[in-house]
Amino acid sequence: MYGAGDVRVENVPDARLFEPTDALVRVTRAAICGSDLWPYKTMPREEQGQRMGHEFVGVVEDVGDDVRAVRVGDLVVAPFLWSDGTCVFCREGLHTSCLHGGRYGFDDVDGGQGEAVRVPQADGTLVALPVGEDDALMPSLVTLTDVMATGHHAAVTAHVGPGKTVAVVGDGAVGLCGVIAAKRLGAEQIVMLGRHQNRISLARDFGATEIVSERGDEAVERVRELTGGFGAHSVLECVGLGQAVDTALAIARPGGAVGRVGVPQEDTIDGSVAFWKNVSVAGGPAPARAYIDELLPDVLDGKIEPGRVFDRTASLDEVPDGYRAMNEREAIKVLVEP
Amino acid sequence: MYGAGDVRVENVPDARLFEPTDALVRVTRAAICGSDLWPYKTMPREEQGQRMGHEFVGVVEDVGDDVRAVRVGDLVVAPFLWSDGTCVFCREGLHTSCLHGGRYGFDDVDGGQGEAVRVPQADGTLVALPVGEDDALMPSLVTLTDVMATGHHAAVTAHVGPGKTVAVVGDGAVGLCGVIAAKRLGAEQIVMLGRHQNRISLARDFGATEIVSERGDEAVERVRELTGGFGAHSVLECVGLGQAVDTALAIARPGGAVGRVGVPQEDTIDGSVAFWKNVSVAGGPAPARAYIDELLPDVLDGKIEPGRVFDRTASLDEVPDGYRAMNEREAIKVLVEP
Repeated sequence: MYGAGDVRVENVPDARLFEPTDALVRVTRAAICGSDLWPYKTMPREEQGQRMGHEFVGVVEDVGDDVRAVRVGDLVVAPFLWSDGTCVFCREGLHTSCLHGGRYGFDDVDGGQGEAVRVPQADGTLVALPVGEDDALMPSLVTLTDVMATGHHAAVTAHVGPGKTVAVVGDGAVGLCGVIAAKRLGAEQIVMLGRHQNRISLARDFGATEIVSERGDEAVERVRELTGGFGAHSVLECVGLGQAVDTALAIARPGGAVGRVGVPQEDTIDGSVAFWKNVSVAGGPAPARAYIDELLPDVLDGKIEPGRVFDRTASLDEVPDGYRAMNEREAIKVLVEP
Repeated sequence: MYGAGDVRVENVPDARLFEPTDALVRVTRAAICGSDLWPYKTMPREEQGQRMGHEFVGVVEDVGDDVRAVRVGDLVVAPFLWSDGTCVFCREGLHTSCLHGGRYGFDDVDGGQGEAVRVPQADGTLVALPVGEDDALMPSLVTLTDVMATGHHAAVTAHVGPGKTVAVVGDGAVGLCGVIAAKRLGAEQIVMLGRHQNRISLARDFGATEIVSERGDEAVERVRELTGGFGAHSVLECVGLGQAVDTALAIARPGGAVGRVGVPQEDTIDGSVAFWKNVSVAGGPAPARAYIDELLPDVLDGKIEPGRVFDRTASLDEVPDGYRAMNEREAIKVLVEP
């Protein structure tokens, strides 16, 4: 990406091993993320460009001398950040704060929207999959890299549990995965705020019990009506815009919780609204590596089908048009087949 | 209070029963609260004036026909809000969001800094004390109305528990009670941010293991040094000013929690800092009524001595000077003996 709206498919140096803890992964499936749309909307023009993509599944082609957990030929899923798996934060399940972790597409680490990626800290990062690279479950397995894990994080940090009422702000792929996560964790009522017909019907399939299509204050009023006048115990904020955060805070029940996973586009949030009704605000980047262990069995069993958020497939050459389609909300989420 | 800095002792109509659920309480001890200092600093001049005080212990002088839980002659402690004890929020322990609750000093309800108070919803609000009105434990019992409950709420919402590292922002009475609460809940390390010698030595007596007297960025740096470089698992924000909230967020460890109980003086907080390190921000007005059940036995057993935050006593006539003394930080907290 060279700037807002400017995504190009180019040849880059071949990915190769640098460190003995690296693995070289040939990408078999990748995806465009909702968070990739923020730079797509706003990135200042750059000479250098930025390599993109942090959601991918692939086959291990080579490993460094210290790699033990994955082998050449393994099909692996890569969470959207790499992490060593051994530091104090990884041991606590917060791999996103790994002391030796990092992001794809920066420094000497390749982006996931490409043919191959050097994955640092391979042992701590990659999870081998017990299926073939063209398995029918592949779209759902790709969501474990980010969106399904992120929707789950929203639900966990919003304290979703049996009998809870849940509201989901954001009908993108993460919000839709948040519906899956809320249902999976036993929510009794799941209210999705959304307006697009295809997203609404997917949300219903995933377990949403009500849809609120109003905006702003009217949406707040409608959610309150649907939740006995008090708001939702758990609110999943899956957008990141200030208005979405305000809505999330407004529809949270006193004593409830907001789980934020939308990448913040404004730095400040209204702390007074949360304070006076004792609403907790938590969330952040999802420790996908930790959640894969929990979610993978349900994907393999077909209990959850988050792969249904992909409604378009693109070759590498079609990736720029994939960004356009997602940005114009023509597609929910684009699966990339290099 | 008629405006900033203008507190007067005046005759008001005698407190009396209005509703069958009321109790009439003769105040035996009251207190000036740190939150009373916000209007003392900023309240615009008013003709009408505002009746003050929400922390008191007293003797029941009369009860309405529907009151069952307390009797004439009982010595009772009153949490800083009244609540019915039966609504959905009270049953969940969030009495501060009671559907039929309210604040002292407003409408027809007297302020606590006076001779007598009509207490609405007496059955849901008042807790009888098994001691005499001049018992030596009285100062500690008065803290159950607000500051000790509030410090406890900060600790609970900051997820203090055995083995945790804790930092307390604010060396006022609430912060000091936060130290008591953190120690009581099993914290391993308790860092108090404060500079005043008498407050520091009280904090040490209460269980603070380290004192940080630096300000701003230096304080942040120092707390990080003391906590293995990462910050504290649990941060108790007991001030309410924007800078205190910023400090609290900055010294929280990734994956940690900030419990806010300082009445917010700024509406916005920096949500990005919390987001990127997955720090939860919770707290609000403390459900003191719920916490009295938990804390009272420890006060009666002498296991905790929150009454030591009172370092001055005032008659009703001396209340205006008590405000001045607390505002100038000459006194930590003033006990009122009407």
